[in-house]
Amino acid sequence: MKSKSSLIRFLYAASEQSADLFYLSGVFVPDSYLSVLINGRAFAVVSRLEFSRVKAQSKYDEVFLLEAVRAEVAKTFKISLAAVGPVELMRYFAKQYKARMVEVPEDFPAAYYAGLQAVGLKLQIGSSPFFPERSRKTDLEAAAIRQGNAASAAGIRAAERVLRASKIVGKRLIFEGAALTSQRLRIIIDQACLAKGAVALNTIVAGGLQACDPHEGGHGPLRPNELIIVDVFPRVQKTGYHGDMTRTFLKGKADDSQRALVHAVRDAQSAALAKVKSGVSGASVHKAAERVFRLRGFPTERRGDQFVGFIHSTGHGLGLDIHEEPRVSTAAGRLRKGNVITIEPGLYYPEIGGCRIEDVVRVTRDGCEMLSSLHYRWELK
Amino acid sequence: MKSKSSLIRFLYAASEQSADLFYLSGVFVPDSYLSVLINGRAFAVVSRLEFSRVKAQSKYDEVFLLEAVRAEVAKTFKISLAAVGPVELMRYFAKQYKARMVEVPEDFPAAYYAGLQAVGLKLQIGSSPFFPERSRKTDLEAAAIRQGNAASAAGIRAAERVLRASKIVGKRLIFEGAALTSQRLRIIIDQACLAKGAVALNTIVAGGLQACDPHEGGHGPLRPNELIIVDVFPRVQKTGYHGDMTRTFLKGKADDSQRALVHAVRDAQSAALAKVKSGVSGASVHKAAERVFRLRGFPTERRGDQFVGFIHSTGHGLGLDIHEEPRVSTAAGRLRKGNVITIEPGLYYPEIGGCRIEDVVRVTRDGCEMLSSLHYRWELK
Repeated sequence: MKSKSSLIRFLYAASEQSADLFYLSGVFVPDSYLSVLINGRAFAVVSRLEFSRVKAQSKYDEVFLLEAVRAEVAKTFKISLAAVGPVELMRYFAKQYKARMVEVPEDFPAAYYAGLQAVGLKLQIGSSPFFPERSRKTDLEAAAIRQGNAASAAGIRAAERVLRASKIVGKRLIFEGAALTSQRLRIIIDQACLAKGAVALNTIVAGGLQACDPHEGGHGPLRPNELIIVDVFPRVQKTGYHGDMTRTFLKGKADDSQRALVHAVRDAQSAALAKVKSGVSGASVHKAAERVFRLRGFPTERRGDQFVGFIHSTGHGLGLDIHEEPRVSTAAGRLRKGNVITIEPGLYYPEIGGCRIEDVVRVTRDGCEMLSSLHYRWELK
Repeated sequence: MKSKSSLIRFLYAASEQSADLFYLSGVFVPDSYLSVLINGRAFAVVSRLEFSRVKAQSKYDEVFLLEAVRAEVAKTFKISLAAVGPVELMRYFAKQYKARMVEVPEDFPAAYYAGLQAVGLKLQIGSSPFFPERSRKTDLEAAAIRQGNAASAAGIRAAERVLRASKIVGKRLIFEGAALTSQRLRIIIDQACLAKGAVALNTIVAGGLQACDPHEGGHGPLRPNELIIVDVFPRVQKTGYHGDMTRTFLKGKADDSQRALVHAVRDAQSAALAKVKSGVSGASVHKAAERVFRLRGFPTERRGDQFVGFIHSTGHGLGLDIHEEPRVSTAAGRLRKGNVITIEPGLYYPEIGGCRIEDVVRVTRDGCEMLSSLHYRWELK
């Protein structure tokens, strides 16, 4: 185990929470544990509860048993077993490998960072993401994201079916004998995602005024003749990759301002998509969408506590995290081949409603490849 | 805004991920943002995308607009707007309040911890959990956890119904014309949880040998006459609180060793539950379960890479996090009134199978109050 080396890297997290760690390990572990990167090799230290599973299923070069390592650490530092926590474990490996520098991820717990400093180790913060290659997706990863979007699309289609089947009665939509609510429709969507092996969290089903607040989940009865945003971003349980798609529906009859809004968003999305290719900046993709809105006369501005218009960025990287590198916004840098990004312009005005349309693409040398697929019909009779 | 004070506390996280932060804010925000605690008041700095929603729905005393604060910070420190990141924001507030010490949670991002050190601030790590009162649940929180367990129970009951309805054909269980698999049953369970407004992640449906690995989710066909562990721990979407229940079923006919195993686990659970009350140590609750297994002749030991017997702790705190304080294990400290804990002994032997039975209680002055409810029948004809 002893060898001369300068840099040792530690991750201390649960791979169910940390996308970096799941990327490294390929196995879901619910509680935090130590991973060590040294001399081009990766190993994990896990408790007996995880040992055989992680050994059998993970991508680590080696898996150590926590209980055995702790005993060794206690002996080496001549301390009690009870005194061996994560910091002592890391200090032990740094010593074993004669590491002169320790690198940790940006989101490494401050408590252990401080603990490692206190025992005299030199520390540096790694890049974000910790594994930069995460932002350039392989064909396998693209397929996993496509699968995530198949789940998103199944959820949105389920919503569409329910909206089509609902009857307009006064200011309500009646479905299976009861007023259709955002909550009810969300359950139907999320159940459709589950049937595709994906778990949807915080699915948005927001109509009318609620849709003008892009992170409002939506609650209460849905109404006819109002724009309803349906944004579904499930995680495929097996692979850990996400889908992320949005469609905006209207049950009943749209008026001219709603129609103009939806067409502007759709055209902004097309303009942004047309701009995407390797080497182009995320900022210029964002500007392409902004330009459409400006030309169509849709301003972005503040009204008291409310912001209206195009009040978010055009998109974000998508993968093991729902929001990851690269960004597609005002100051975003160059897109690179293999980046997977959402393209999701939107417009929000209380007097008209909210509309967002979102798809996912992988950046290629001369354009992009769609990783999501669903029609854009939005006015449902 | 200016006042003299010594300690300022910062959280920088997404409340969808950080239980501490959701506890403070009461509102789900998907991306990381700054919260500041000073002079008994709490405020947040959020982007225009979150501003009106957080202002309307959160428990903060005040909500500031990120875009406005960033401009102010740039002016104060005479730096460009682009240079204003989270560290500069925090430095600004520390300066405004003349804070001599900054406190951050254990899981505060190391990158910002290092950044605050670099600008000369004195730092300390707060307690874990950051808000210690999180471990003593109010009646409202107990009700929310009860609701979580109602979702767990709905999931487990759905699984039981499917197992009862399945036909034994050779070494397979046939349900609706196809071999019943762990995956299929997991979807049915998770859909039942959703119908109760709760999202289940990583539901365990593991039979036979798979059940002997407590964190194995389970895959492939389920078999008759084998113990099947069903562990369901959904999060109620509205409140953020979890349920966590486990039952072990067997479809067909149990043999004597399976029966002895299940009875030992059930009796260990009863023994542990009988021990729970305020002032008693978690360790002695754990020992009560261990004692039953010892007396019944079920050893805990290593066999190569595999560990058999009672290979995990008796329980853990449950709330906004699925695993939180206090622990119910070998070295655990005293239980206090209001603690909500799982009691979930288990036994795992490849030659017999795995069994775990789990319920949730709130610690009271002279015992405990059950927050989960479901029968213990396990042999299904």
